[in-house]
Amino acid sequence: MSEIKEACGVVGMYDPDGENVAPALYYGLTALQHRGQEACGMAVSRTDKERGNVCFHKNLGLVSEVLTEEVVERMDGNIGLGHVRYSTTGASVAENAQPLVLSYIKGTLALAHNGNLINTPELKWELIQNGAIFHTTTDSEVIAFHIARERVHSASVEEAVYKTALKIKGGFALVIMSPRKLIGVRDPYGLKPLCLGKRDNAYVLASESCALAAMGAEFVRDILPGEVVTITGEEVQSKMLPVAESRAHCIFEYIYFARLDSTMDGVRVYDARIRAGRMLAKSHPVEADLVTGVPESGLPAAQGYGLESGISFALAFYKNSYIGRTFIKPTQKERESAVRMKLSVLESAVRDKRIVLVDDSIVRGTTIANLIRMLKEAGAKEVHVRISSPPFLYPCYFGTDVPSNSQLIAANHSEEAICEMIGADSLGYLRREDLSEMADGLSLCKACFDGAYPMDYSGV
Amino acid sequence: MSEIKEACGVVGMYDPDGENVAPALYYGLTALQHRGQEACGMAVSRTDKERGNVCFHKNLGLVSEVLTEEVVERMDGNIGLGHVRYSTTGASVAENAQPLVLSYIKGTLALAHNGNLINTPELKWELIQNGAIFHTTTDSEVIAFHIARERVHSASVEEAVYKTALKIKGGFALVIMSPRKLIGVRDPYGLKPLCLGKRDNAYVLASESCALAAMGAEFVRDILPGEVVTITGEEVQSKMLPVAESRAHCIFEYIYFARLDSTMDGVRVYDARIRAGRMLAKSHPVEADLVTGVPESGLPAAQGYGLESGISFALAFYKNSYIGRTFIKPTQKERESAVRMKLSVLESAVRDKRIVLVDDSIVRGTTIANLIRMLKEAGAKEVHVRISSPPFLYPCYFGTDVPSNSQLIAANHSEEAICEMIGADSLGYLRREDLSEMADGLSLCKACFDGAYPMDYSGV
Amino acid sequence: MSEIKEACGVVGMYDPDGENVAPALYYGLTALQHRGQEACGMAVSRTDKERGNVCFHKNLGLVSEVLTEEVVERMDGNIGLGHVRYSTTGASVAENAQPLVLSYIKGTLALAHNGNLINTPELKWELIQNGAIFHTTTDSEVIAFHIARERVHSASVEEAVYKTALKIKGGFALVIMSPRKLIGVRDPYGLKPLCLGKRDNAYVLASESCALAAMGAEFVRDILPGEVVTITGEEVQSKMLPVAESRAHCIFEYIYFARLDSTMDGVRVYDARIRAGRMLAKSHPVEADLVTGVPESGLPAAQGYGLESGISFALAFYKNSYIGRTFIKPTQKERESAVRMKLSVLESAVRDKRIVLVDDSIVRGTTIANLIRMLKEAGAKEVHVRISSPPFLYPCYFGTDVPSNSQLIAANHSEEAICEMIGADSLGYLRREDLSEMADGLSLCKACFDGAYPMDYSGV
Amino acid sequence: MSEIKEACGVVGMYDPDGENVAPALYYGLTALQHRGQEACGMAVSRTDKERGNVCFHKNLGLVSEVLTEEVVERMDGNIGLGHVRYSTTGASVAENAQPLVLSYIKGTLALAHNGNLINTPELKWELIQNGAIFHTTTDSEVIAFHIARERVHSASVEEAVYKTALKIKGGFALVIMSPRKLIGVRDPYGLKPLCLGKRDNAYVLASESCALAAMGAEFVRDILPGEVVTITGEEVQSKMLPVAESRAHCIFEYIYFARLDSTMDGVRVYDARIRAGRMLAKSHPVEADLVTGVPESGLPAAQGYGLESGISFALAFYKNSYIGRTFIKPTQKERESAVRMKLSVLESAVRDKRIVLVDDSIVRGTTIANLIRMLKEAGAKEVHVRISSPPFLYPCYFGTDVPSNSQLIAANHSEEAICEMIGADSLGYLRREDLSEMADGLSLCKACFDGAYPMDYSGV
Repeated sequence: MSEIKEACGVVGMYDPDGENVAPALYYGLTALQHRGQEACGMAVSRTDKERGNVCFHKNLGLVSEVLTEEVVERMDGNIGLGHVRYSTTGASVAENAQPLVLSYIKGTLALAHNGNLINTPELKWELIQNGAIFHTTTDSEVIAFHIARERVHSASVEEAVYKTALKIKGGFALVIMSPRKLIGVRDPYGLKPLCLGKRDNAYVLASESCALAAMGAEFVRDILPGEVVTITGEEVQSKMLPVAESRAHCIFEYIYFARLDSTMDGVRVYDARIRAGRMLAKSHPVEADLVTGVPESGLPAAQGYGLESGISFALAFYKNSYIGRTFIKPTQKERESAVRMKLSVLESAVRDKRIVLVDDSIVRGTTIANLIRMLKEAGAKEVHVRISSPPFLYPCYFGTDVPSNSQLIAANHSEEAICEMIGADSLGYLRREDLSEMADGLSLCKACFDGAYPMDYSGV
Repeated sequence: MSEIKEACGVVGMYDPDGENVAPALYYGLTALQHRGQEACGMAVSRTDKERGNVCFHKNLGLVSEVLTEEVVERMDGNIGLGHVRYSTTGASVAENAQPLVLSYIKGTLALAHNGNLINTPELKWELIQNGAIFHTTTDSEVIAFHIARERVHSASVEEAVYKTALKIKGGFALVIMSPRKLIGVRDPYGLKPLCLGKRDNAYVLASESCALAAMGAEFVRDILPGEVVTITGEEVQSKMLPVAESRAHCIFEYIYFARLDSTMDGVRVYDARIRAGRMLAKSHPVEADLVTGVPESGLPAAQGYGLESGISFALAFYKNSYIGRTFIKPTQKERESAVRMKLSVLESAVRDKRIVLVDDSIVRGTTIANLIRMLKEAGAKEVHVRISSPPFLYPCYFGTDVPSNSQLIAANHSEEAICEMIGADSLGYLRREDLSEMADGLSLCKACFDGAYPMDYSGV
Repeated sequence: MSEIKEACGVVGMYDPDGENVAPALYYGLTALQHRGQEACGMAVSRTDKERGNVCFHKNLGLVSEVLTEEVVERMDGNIGLGHVRYSTTGASVAENAQPLVLSYIKGTLALAHNGNLINTPELKWELIQNGAIFHTTTDSEVIAFHIARERVHSASVEEAVYKTALKIKGGFALVIMSPRKLIGVRDPYGLKPLCLGKRDNAYVLASESCALAAMGAEFVRDILPGEVVTITGEEVQSKMLPVAESRAHCIFEYIYFARLDSTMDGVRVYDARIRAGRMLAKSHPVEADLVTGVPESGLPAAQGYGLESGISFALAFYKNSYIGRTFIKPTQKERESAVRMKLSVLESAVRDKRIVLVDDSIVRGTTIANLIRMLKEAGAKEVHVRISSPPFLYPCYFGTDVPSNSQLIAANHSEEAICEMIGADSLGYLRREDLSEMADGLSLCKACFDGAYPMDYSGV
Repeated sequence: MSEIKEACGVVGMYDPDGENVAPALYYGLTALQHRGQEACGMAVSRTDKERGNVCFHKNLGLVSEVLTEEVVERMDGNIGLGHVRYSTTGASVAENAQPLVLSYIKGTLALAHNGNLINTPELKWELIQNGAIFHTTTDSEVIAFHIARERVHSASVEEAVYKTALKIKGGFALVIMSPRKLIGVRDPYGLKPLCLGKRDNAYVLASESCALAAMGAEFVRDILPGEVVTITGEEVQSKMLPVAESRAHCIFEYIYFARLDSTMDGVRVYDARIRAGRMLAKSHPVEADLVTGVPESGLPAAQGYGLESGISFALAFYKNSYIGRTFIKPTQKERESAVRMKLSVLESAVRDKRIVLVDDSIVRGTTIANLIRMLKEAGAKEVHVRISSPPFLYPCYFGTDVPSNSQLIAANHSEEAICEMIGADSLGYLRREDLSEMADGLSLCKACFDGAYPMDYSGV
């Protein structure tokens, strides 16, 4: 039930046997829908056509709303890419939907981008003072423009992409389609995820491994931090950007963003969340009758807490899955918060029980406070809150949309104060020193918790 | 993950203080959406207007699609009712959506109906041979017509409703709105649920208690089988139909239809499902490492199985909640069934484990077979299937849309054969003799399992 | 440019050779669109199917909006009927769209109705006190209900229709479809038009002859006032209602309602309008340089005026045909009335000219006043207004929606006053005594001009 | 009834008093709808906001469909521009709708463009080989890009527009909006129209004078061929491009494109069409009883023919104005061409008459052939066709979308052959030598008739 928003999800596919990749892209985007629900789109082309012949469709809305059966049936190509978007930079308008499809010196170029650059203003200024025009307010158009400019003096599109990747700073995972090549790029820190899959002779790129499965592809490997992979028919070529001081995988993928069934950089997301729960049980034990989680995001860590502590895990809430984006907010007379319309307590499960309630994070604190009140009204004797991440204290500059400091409860209150404000009997956060073990020793970016940014962000 | 379809859900409200009931009806219908996703609608009126002045809106679609903010804002009345529909009788067309709004001798009459009559043909024939015309193919119009005819010779609308209720046979819960009265009727067997709630001075009728909570109302009591309640301002009057041989509450409400957080006829749905799991553990024990359920319908019984057996309960599937009604079915090339797009296995949770997999029912057997295969592909050593209801063997004549016998795997195969067909290591159904305990001793209709229908249905 | 609204248009077709009549009905309704733009619909069935199997579609909107290609392609039947509606009785809601499709004692009955009854309340009361229910507020449902009731004691549907036609009073043209018969009825006065056509072996019924042409059918004859025609396959049977005192064809069909290329009761609409213009020239001559008409309705009479007077006929306005129903009304700043957005003066044509401006009627007077001002601003020296009908003085009870008396300029002002109010240099109305010659001697209802109603309307 | 398609219409407005110009732009676009029905859009901004704050909306569809009341109400600005489009270059897709709204070195730039360039490939190539990217396939984006590049080295936006205008070749009328200036440009030949109007202190630019009237503005003057006007608040500055060899106003504006009530370059469109009819009467006289025109485009010239010849002018067709773009094409069985659904003959007007039928042009010849057949079937004795323009023989490179030569009947057949093919009794085209008098002596581009292009078009 996190209020943290992820940037985007990307997917790409190239089938040298000429099979239409549009259905697979659709399934891949459906599997990545959790990474962005604001807009989506996809573009496909035929590699045997002169200079490309790109067909694309994008708009505000869910995959099921934008990429309807009618739309997908009209799309045909053996190379293509797709995108789901949660606005980070750029206003929330249809014009900013991706993929970006452009014509440039070598024909058509399409680009899908997850992440956020920290040097966009200087990159854009360089172009604009040379007379460039921009149709959108996205980082992606700036990147595409640089690729087009580099392409003039480069031997190949992958060389132009490589030169551009040297210039852009921040967290990014890119999928780029030229008339006859599919290129994937991952930032040198590995902040944003990207992996490679294969289905028969076709290669697939995707933000998460769960998309590969949905596309019928086998997982091959993660794209390395700083790697530029170029898929030309049945071959995959790779070239590395200069090495960053260190890798810095975004810890929030493991805490909340990534799908529970994905594996990223060798670490299963499910395992990481179970471990987080186990470590919480060790660092913040409590006597209780029941451990439960806030659906859906708190459930795996709750299971982990249960496994470690021996307290039995159970479901304590019913979730109404028909409450959609168009839900009319309740009035005062109904005396019901939106939370209560979406979640209701299973009274028999909680009456007279001492409960451990696990969630992945606390942002404003209002949701968890509501749930605690609901549990107590239903007869819970005690509610001990455990959070499977440390308190948020610092902004993210790489594409995660955390509310501003003034809205972050942890930035302005002590743990004791928060515990009292939300009405919990005790409160425990995952310790910062446990994050590394949660991610099985991966080198992480955990700047939102400790302020240690992997790169200089001054000027953002 | 049941393929059984429920008839409908109904809701009604009368606020003598003049408060607009439209928002509350909207929240009530949202809470009842699980009972019918095909069509919905609501009608409101002002009791202080001469002869009613009904405003209504209904159409095919979900509550959030049909009753949009714009529509609900235009509706104003202190008396009203609403309906969510899953077609049982009548074709799936907009004309058959409810509530039915009609003019008759005393002004406007609106009616919402859950259930199925078994003597519709004779009731309709009686009217039609007297020159009646019908706009729809629903039972509801037949009922309304009889009420209108009885009204001519009755002292009040509730008397006309009572006389009509004497004639109709089957399972039914009705909410009826006349210009200044709200009437609820429940069939003499109590086949279909209906309960009464209160918010300040306003009375509320609803199919399930979960709708009362969503409307900000307190639960008062269940409407009795055979009870006709008439709400006139702040008063509730009650009159009983002749007593049926016995009550016969539909067991399927407890097995699958009703919302997990509802209480019906004194029995909590959650408790019933936990008990079913416990009894399964007793009657069909097995050695295993893990018990899990098919999301969402199998989870409570799985918890119950775990509690009784001591085997730890855990989640084994990730559910993609963005797979909607418009999802494009995968092609062969994607090698993925629709089930796999919706559910994926959490590999770490199941690898090398002996698993008990619980679901509420088996209809065709294809879904459970898919899930078993997915678990085994993910490394599960054994998969023992436990079903929290007995095998379906007989058709329902009272409003539950079970597939025809030829499609029911249990009607055509032994348990051993089914176990092999679905690829399970063992299979156990809830025993028929345990149903009564599941429902805490309630008098039940369990004809779909044993063929013992509560009333004569010949001629249907 | 009349503000008078017509009731409706109807069409029906029965092809005994089994050809699908849906496309022809669509063309017929398109040709009748001028008779009603609020709602439309059509229903078709197959006569070789047991008890009918009616497919229908209706909604608010134009034919091109409601009966889209997708909808028409799904409709198949060799018998059918259609309707375009301008609300006269009944609110302007989708529920009141026609045709009405009902089930009754003999299967399915569909009905399309043009006109207005004057004894609806008593007809409805008779039914309602016997316990009838009504879904709509239209006369049509009342008629259908009476047909269904009569059918119980009648040997055939046409007998039931005949008995019903004996009871209903007012102006009406009905097309009725039973499973194997198509029936047309015209009121005994002939107030509302209806004609018969033929295409190969198929018979066609339509409000106007222009619809027959659009359907590929030849005109056979007008249905007689008081005639009930029953089309059974290749045969047409006819039965007459008791003779009315006199025929009373609605003069407004010739003045404005009917399409310029239709012929009704033996009189060409075009000829009638030319004659009206000629008679105006005789009764209200004036010296002028140019005669023109208000597009489109004033043009034919303007031509007639020119022919008789020798003054040359010319177009003086440009009409912007893209000004649709959704046009945003101009604000004060734009200083332009909606009339000016729709019509603009062709300055060269009118500068320094003495102009005769012809229109079919004056209701409120605002439109003609605007046009006169526009002509004078463009340099016209004189503007002499000639109206091809007498002043409106009395309400219509038979289906023509004339604004109430308080809004009728002629009901409250002398001709001299009106002339001054609209800014004309002279004003002449067609004389009441010329109406008969206009319609070539037909027996007319001209009650809106002289108050001589063809039947007693007390109690309306 | 021409099948020739016009490129586009443009409109712009700047109100220094701060009045919202969005409603006026809407009315202006509605008045220009005849110039393009494929797509439309508008953009507005506030000149007192830093660097502009442009709000825009555009899409495929008519003005009434795209710029709905809801959309227009959300738009607010005291400077703005709008566009209606008929695709000439660029595919028919939403992405190509105008105005183009971009960010460049000085903030936001918006551009609306009517016309076609003949040196786009070289202009685009110059940009693309310097690394430019293009989002659309329109000339307009190429122009905007050049303006942005020139702006880098120019003292003002008008200087950059001027330098760009020096480079582009073809027919063009541009309206450009920078944060605080509105600029209009007309090509040096005056091929495309553009005029200036004034409403209080606000200046208005529009393709035709009829749009000025609709916006409540007075006509000030035509923008001169080769003029760049810059509107800065209450001032209008003007700078001339180098003089072209000669002016070359597009004759087709007078024959068909422009609205009948517009005046262009000092010549009233209505007068030109009347003169064309008069000259036709002189060069191709015939004895006849009646002269009529094909609605609407042939009517003015028909009037002119009548005035000169003394033959009386009359309407001979009824036009069904409800036949829209979504009309379902008639099948064979209906035996009716789409022409017959749209136009029907007024039989009384034509029976036994010798008729002169005037239209503005013949492209494929099928429409006129149909109309002649319909007239003869209705009893016309003779049908003499007169066309108010010479035969099409050459393609247009400046924005008029004439069908290819192979479809042009005049390019492949003699006048005698055409006369026979269409079934006319005689056929006469306007003589090429009369075109100049038609346009009252204006210097014209009549290359489509004589192949004398005003500029070198090789390489197109």
